[in-house]
Amino acid sequence: MPVALTLAEIASRLGGRVVGTPGALIRQVGSLEHAGPDQITFFSRLRHKNKLTATRAAAVILAEDAQDLTSIPRIVCENPYAYFARVSQLFNPVSAPEPGRHPAATVANGAEIAATARVDAGAVVEDGAYVGERAWVGAGCYLGPGCSIGDDSRLHPSVVVYGGCRIGARAIIHSGAVIGADGFGIAQDAGQWIKIPQIGGVVIGDDVEIGANSTIDRGAIDDTVLEEGVKLDNQVQIGHNVRVGAHTAIAGCAGIAGSANIGCHCTIGGAAVILGHLKLADRVNVSAGTLISRSILAPGTYTGVFPFDVNASWTRNAVWLRHLSELSDRVRGLERLLGRKGENG
Amino acid sequence: MPVALTLAEIASRLGGRVVGTPGALIRQVGSLEHAGPDQITFFSRLRHKNKLTATRAAAVILAEDAQDLTSIPRIVCENPYAYFARVSQLFNPVSAPEPGRHPAATVANGAEIAATARVDAGAVVEDGAYVGERAWVGAGCYLGPGCSIGDDSRLHPSVVVYGGCRIGARAIIHSGAVIGADGFGIAQDAGQWIKIPQIGGVVIGDDVEIGANSTIDRGAIDDTVLEEGVKLDNQVQIGHNVRVGAHTAIAGCAGIAGSANIGCHCTIGGAAVILGHLKLADRVNVSAGTLISRSILAPGTYTGVFPFDVNASWTRNAVWLRHLSELSDRVRGLERLLGRKGENG
Amino acid sequence: MPVALTLAEIASRLGGRVVGTPGALIRQVGSLEHAGPDQITFFSRLRHKNKLTATRAAAVILAEDAQDLTSIPRIVCENPYAYFARVSQLFNPVSAPEPGRHPAATVANGAEIAATARVDAGAVVEDGAYVGERAWVGAGCYLGPGCSIGDDSRLHPSVVVYGGCRIGARAIIHSGAVIGADGFGIAQDAGQWIKIPQIGGVVIGDDVEIGANSTIDRGAIDDTVLEEGVKLDNQVQIGHNVRVGAHTAIAGCAGIAGSANIGCHCTIGGAAVILGHLKLADRVNVSAGTLISRSILAPGTYTGVFPFDVNASWTRNAVWLRHLSELSDRVRGLERLLGRKGENG
Repeated sequence: MPVALTLAEIASRLGGRVVGTPGALIRQVGSLEHAGPDQITFFSRLRHKNKLTATRAAAVILAEDAQDLTSIPRIVCENPYAYFARVSQLFNPVSAPEPGRHPAATVANGAEIAATARVDAGAVVEDGAYVGERAWVGAGCYLGPGCSIGDDSRLHPSVVVYGGCRIGARAIIHSGAVIGADGFGIAQDAGQWIKIPQIGGVVIGDDVEIGANSTIDRGAIDDTVLEEGVKLDNQVQIGHNVRVGAHTAIAGCAGIAGSANIGCHCTIGGAAVILGHLKLADRVNVSAGTLISRSILAPGTYTGVFPFDVNASWTRNAVWLRHLSELSDRVRGLERLLGRKGENG
Repeated sequence: MPVALTLAEIASRLGGRVVGTPGALIRQVGSLEHAGPDQITFFSRLRHKNKLTATRAAAVILAEDAQDLTSIPRIVCENPYAYFARVSQLFNPVSAPEPGRHPAATVANGAEIAATARVDAGAVVEDGAYVGERAWVGAGCYLGPGCSIGDDSRLHPSVVVYGGCRIGARAIIHSGAVIGADGFGIAQDAGQWIKIPQIGGVVIGDDVEIGANSTIDRGAIDDTVLEEGVKLDNQVQIGHNVRVGAHTAIAGCAGIAGSANIGCHCTIGGAAVILGHLKLADRVNVSAGTLISRSILAPGTYTGVFPFDVNASWTRNAVWLRHLSELSDRVRGLERLLGRKGENG
Repeated sequence: MPVALTLAEIASRLGGRVVGTPGALIRQVGSLEHAGPDQITFFSRLRHKNKLTATRAAAVILAEDAQDLTSIPRIVCENPYAYFARVSQLFNPVSAPEPGRHPAATVANGAEIAATARVDAGAVVEDGAYVGERAWVGAGCYLGPGCSIGDDSRLHPSVVVYGGCRIGARAIIHSGAVIGADGFGIAQDAGQWIKIPQIGGVVIGDDVEIGANSTIDRGAIDDTVLEEGVKLDNQVQIGHNVRVGAHTAIAGCAGIAGSANIGCHCTIGGAAVILGHLKLADRVNVSAGTLISRSILAPGTYTGVFPFDVNASWTRNAVWLRHLSELSDRVRGLERLLGRKGENG
């Protein structure tokens, strides 16, 4: 049954201060542009002020310093985006799945499925695999021998978990994700590649979300580790023996090469690349599209992106990159000629 | 039954002017290098002139200005590549699938499958899902509750469509594509990430093609939209609430971050990245490997790629990127010393 | 039954020279940090000297010049990493699968499955497909009409092979890989895209490994080819009509655009991009994150990456990239003023 709450009821559950009609009735969240008269929205970017003025929402969540930008009912709070997240969770609760195994699932006798868990059609669960309480294994998922899925975890359809991998509680894993495939462990020998058996596993903590078609390789010898609260977007690649520290978030298409050690509370932007065997301290932010080629020992934001330009300008300028060293030599030469000491001289 | 057509018959169907034997019989298309004596090829790159000379094809499609480069039978037309596409479609027609549901498919009672549609083994179709006339749902596909697949669409094996997503007519969706997984909506709160329920959908217009293992996230609140005629290559990532305008083509491994608004008739090169909340005008071309970090309001081609070099040269030059600002200061200093006004001074 | 071998037995099988107790009994490989007292490890990076000192391993594999860095039993050899790979293979042998077709697999009557092959639950094998001796088709895999899988190949769960594709012997293909989807062949015509039927196939040689969620497109007309011994990591994209030469290795997230011709014994770093229609000579190494925009005719290492920096410094310096050409003009101007001839003048 859909939820309906007044502003006052919302604030009594989640905090914040109501300005305007406390009895305004809310049934769902909405965007500034499209919210209807029984929906609550949020405002966090000043440049969307016009949208705030035009909104037809019943109420808005905003910060102290924005509270006078509108006269519609509102909840004033410190972190409007996080508050909005909690409000949306109120109106869109996740319910436990109907338990049971679909007759078109294939569950080995030696697998252990909790009584409250659900396994959908086409899923295959191998011997020794464990599925926790209220966990939901979607259609067509594969759980390899001896892997385990924690309580209240949800695997959307077509997730593959290789044998022996361990996933914590409350995981959300989206379709097409592959957990525990072999790492890229090959040794060069006389012009051919010899495969190094990948005998480590993958250990994933609680409250981890993994996006669609992301891949997390098993360790070569020891385990690949994602600590609690890690969030991965779609098409993220995690190499073997990587460790991702707690509460780090990695945006889409990023790649973390083998044995990289990422700290806690980091953010890695979309399509960023972290080379192998590097260490990133806690609270490092890597900008989208940046390749990290050395360890980063201090918190902060790091960037390395070629600024785009209209093609003709890019062509004219980029050619000089192949002559930068020479250009700087020429500047040094001029400085010497004039008896001047360059900053690097 | 394989098709056989004379050059004259082809030209009568598709236009163009036949030069040489109009009765030359064609049974298939072929490449310049490998076409056999009953195959037609095309020529569009002058640097392949040697291959044209050497071809054993029965005929060739080419432009006016190239018609004298060969003496084999030929069709002269304005756009040889597009013409070739149409000829290849003649010889390789797509036929409607044999209708029916494979006994090893799992179709919910509340799903609606058109009488002329086909659902293959291992597919799972949930309640309220709709599959249109002559549509083909491949082996192991998953159609979530309430989603809809338009007439004549083909989902190759192992495509996942989450609940509520709507796909138009004549779609071609390749294996491993995931439509409608949650967007990467998380809010930071006291060092932890709070999930924002992703309650929007995905709406895909007619005549869209989506490559293997591409991912298109559902909207956070409103929908993610791909307009008609959009073509996505493999491993493309489309974030939540993105809009891709009609007839835009996006090459492999490109990523479009959340809420980006891409115009119509754009081309996005392979591995390019468009950051979130940006707007790209119609007819913008983004070069491969380019990261777009600001909105682009004018048509044109935009590039931002570090030109590769032999590693030693790259190392010698790239180090100066960390001193560019200083280098320019030194040049300014010299200009002042000499009483000269720099272009930026 | 787990293997147990003395150092002497290992050396008699694989070569190398034992220093210290030849009778030391080994049961498994381990990492320098975590190896236990019946495990053998390897040492190849001098900066891990501390870990070597601290290791509790029973034995270590190392090179001549490192043999005196420890006093534990050791095997001295030329290529410790390759030697380690072989030792790990000894202790972790790959066994042939139990033959048979799972009753929940769907195998067409016209498919040919070797008597010693195995097909797991949920797999779908179409007419005319061939599965070789001792090959293992994992759960939920799809083998299209007329494709073939060589002897001793292993397809992990959820691999898709489109019709007509040919895979050699001893392949290892990880979950989510898609072989033979249509290439991105579209022709522009009056503002719309016309699909070019992709009628080529994919031909994969012996001893190829393909990582999770990688995609290899079928050819437009002729075939896409991976020669023997090619190794692909996860999320690699291979466009139509690409040829990858023998024993080339391509790291995660790399993309090879259509008709590129990569030589033998190349290495392509993670997230690197090779544009279409280019030729790379044998023994070319492309650094991670590098975009190759022209053919490379000589062996060597090639790089093109923007060096990352703290964001503020990057911002300060990167802005000058849009003025590089002008900056060089100003330097030239100064040189002329001083009667000096620049290196490029």
